[in-house]
Amino acid sequence: MATASSGSRRKASSRARPEVSVLRVGHRPGRDPRLTTHLALAARAFGAREMFLQPPDPQLAERVRAVAHRWGGSFAVVGTDDWKKVVRAFDGPVVHLTMYGVSLEKVLPRLARARRVLLVVGGAKVPPDLYRLSTHNVAVGHQPHSEVAAVAVTLERLCGLPGPRAPRNARQVILPRARGKRVAMRPART
Amino acid sequence: MATASSGSRRKASSRARPEVSVLRVGHRPGRDPRLTTHLALAARAFGAREMFLQPPDPQLAERVRAVAHRWGGSFAVVGTDDWKKVVRAFDGPVVHLTMYGVSLEKVLPRLARARRVLLVVGGAKVPPDLYRLSTHNVAVGHQPHSEVAAVAVTLERLCGLPGPRAPRNARQVILPRARGKRVAMRPART
Repeated sequence: MATASSGSRRKASSRARPEVSVLRVGHRPGRDPRLTTHLALAARAFGAREMFLQPPDPQLAERVRAVAHRWGGSFAVVGTDDWKKVVRAFDGPVVHLTMYGVSLEKVLPRLARARRVLLVVGGAKVPPDLYRLSTHNVAVGHQPHSEVAAVAVTLERLCGLPGPRAPRNARQVILPRARGKRVAMRPART
Repeated sequence: MATASSGSRRKASSRARPEVSVLRVGHRPGRDPRLTTHLALAARAFGAREMFLQPPDPQLAERVRAVAHRWGGSFAVVGTDDWKKVVRAFDGPVVHLTMYGVSLEKVLPRLARARRVLLVVGGAKVPPDLYRLSTHNVAVGHQPHSEVAAVAVTLERLCGLPGPRAPRNARQVILPRARGKRVAMRPART
């Protein structure tokens, strides 16, 4: 997203931020479509580059693609049948978000120095291998809550709040207002 | 939650934090159970005191009550048929979270000084009155994402990351670990 130069980012704005990808393991296409859509959109809005989705869900990927087309940027949902392959191939720390892990606060300084970070969230049943294969098992609070919240807050702590600028290729741009809605449409670039 | 004294909270730890409530408007009991459950659990985990839910959903409230019973604290889901009444009766700033509003960063200093804050999130269709009746319409990024993410990130910016301490009355307490899971059970107090 083209917001890295925004003045509204905190500390993170003064130095390079890691490029963050998200991996969702154990998605249930029939049961989780809305929740996983929220996860993908939150990942996109808070600056992730892509979300790997195991197993693939082409309908969900298409819905998110349509949103990304209107609102800009290059975020995509990438289906995969083999989450271990994604984890093993990743060239940076792999951070499994789990309430059982160590506190996010402890791990943040190390993550902030990385060039790339993979945030992994499990579904209802987390494969035990995920704890072993991850570089860090990290808790965003040691209480049950939501993978959507865990990914959003981790991204926000790593990259700062999203700035007001829309991506360059956005077709729709919000004009922030104290009351009501205002959206500007941009012509498609040829 | 009994985490206010935790050393892992940021800036917010050195002064009084606002007491935050959440109001979810336009819940659809048949369609949104999982998403609204995630919203309630995220609100609880990030330090909200309660979540008002319009319309009421007794089954959902009971599920969340069972989680809060195990994990401690006094968070509750309070059903209401009249969201305007909740907004009008609230004795503090009412913050409608909407991608069309002004940036969270701008409003945060004012919210941090409040004694109580009500965060309001709409469902699929947001009643136009909500924009008018709220003290602030606030965007956590001007991109579509998730009410779960918006509430979690706003709470985190207001109150800091949840500390490692469990509430005093928790029956289950996580012992943070770099690998795997460890949970301690506490006897019920009489």
